[in-house]
Amino acid sequence: METLKVIKIGGNIIDNDVALSSFLKEFSKLKGPKILVHGGGKLASKLATQMNIPVTMTEGRRVTDDKTLDIITMVYAGKINKNIVAQLQSHKCNSIGFSGADGNTIVSTKRPTKPIDYGFAGDVKQVNTETLKILLQNNITPVFCAITHDKKGQLLNTNADTIASELAIGFATSYHTKLYYCFEKNGVLENVENDDSVIEEINTKTYKTLIENGIIYEGMLPKLNNCFYAINHNVKKVCIGKSDMLFHTNAKHTTITK
Amino acid sequence: METLKVIKIGGNIIDNDVALSSFLKEFSKLKGPKILVHGGGKLASKLATQMNIPVTMTEGRRVTDDKTLDIITMVYAGKINKNIVAQLQSHKCNSIGFSGADGNTIVSTKRPTKPIDYGFAGDVKQVNTETLKILLQNNITPVFCAITHDKKGQLLNTNADTIASELAIGFATSYHTKLYYCFEKNGVLENVENDDSVIEEINTKTYKTLIENGIIYEGMLPKLNNCFYAINHNVKKVCIGKSDMLFHTNAKHTTITK
Repeated sequence: METLKVIKIGGNIIDNDVALSSFLKEFSKLKGPKILVHGGGKLASKLATQMNIPVTMTEGRRVTDDKTLDIITMVYAGKINKNIVAQLQSHKCNSIGFSGADGNTIVSTKRPTKPIDYGFAGDVKQVNTETLKILLQNNITPVFCAITHDKKGQLLNTNADTIASELAIGFATSYHTKLYYCFEKNGVLENVENDDSVIEEINTKTYKTLIENGIIYEGMLPKLNNCFYAINHNVKKVCIGKSDMLFHTNAKHTTITK
Repeated sequence: METLKVIKIGGNIIDNDVALSSFLKEFSKLKGPKILVHGGGKLASKLATQMNIPVTMTEGRRVTDDKTLDIITMVYAGKINKNIVAQLQSHKCNSIGFSGADGNTIVSTKRPTKPIDYGFAGDVKQVNTETLKILLQNNITPVFCAITHDKKGQLLNTNADTIASELAIGFATSYHTKLYYCFEKNGVLENVENDDSVIEEINTKTYKTLIENGIIYEGMLPKLNNCFYAINHNVKKVCIGKSDMLFHTNAKHTTITK
């Protein structure tokens, strides 16, 4: 089977024009089929503030009322997505921007309003890879923003890490899929204050120990849960670290194994 | 050759949720390959005002500075485009949203700054239909917003009527293309105050006479120039009128002929 890389980038790249431009230049050179998934960074909150729309976060996640949904659709699917696509085209990487509504690629259901009402937040229900496969076979790179739809006309805000893992899982029967989470650190760290203390490999057993010992906590928990969910659903390789890990073979990073 | 319909809708549909929803329901039932092109309506100016960004129009066209380009990218490619795609999916019309950057489908050049500097406005240079053809063959409807790119990483604001005619022309060698401009009137009117006074057919010769007699003027001129440009570049049929013309065979409209 051919290898497919699913690569997720977040705020540390999205929010920095120089970092984004440099990442996209290197990304466009990566050989073989690939999919890029991008988060929204700080831009949506900035625009909400400019428009006097309150930003409400509960347990680290955005509460998405109708006005907030408009804002994230404008920022994620509009400004960020189209600028990424235009830059990739300038590097001769033919790409098409996607939300989950486009091509009916990612269908989600509105999250139950209890215990917490997150508003127009979607939990992924189904990934349809047919159209994306045709594009990949034609050397086109899909670029996903973190928006899905419910197939009833409603757009839904969806976690970008989850979109990346669900896409990697969805393609696991047709490709040897590798999932890469790029973030601001070299990987999962033994000591959060030392960026060199990268734990090179985490498996299900050592993961439990790391949680028990308080090494992994808070924001890293949902990220790593996504990693283990993917590796347990036929994704062949899951890595987490700085985007260097994609371009330099000796760059430190954490690999997740069963 | 198979028939391809290229349909452009403007502010009278885009700015009215009920009209848009009703149009999309009927549009999704149209048989055969089709492409939808949408303008931006009043939403971009509304958002600019909310954000205290001045709206500058010169000779009926928007002057697009960098902040305005961000706004139209957010509104056209984000909010409007994704909501249209989500609604079409709810009617089982599989669609994918496009700017000209996506799939490198429409390449334009920044308009010369003289005699008038329109900022980031693009004049269409090239239409690439390969990827779109693959999608059309797979029963997928492309939905275009009025944004193109220069292949050097720059997005450019481009007139939606022009995008529609350039797409229709681009496909004219592979399809029997029909171009429909939907707007708020029943067609080109003999008397602008009487919506029943539709001129059923206009050809190059009668067009000249209508201009000389002051029947066609101002905003209708660029619209009709696009129509004649298309019909003179192998587009098989060009119609202008209310969107009813697409769904009801007896609906009045104007047909443009050579």
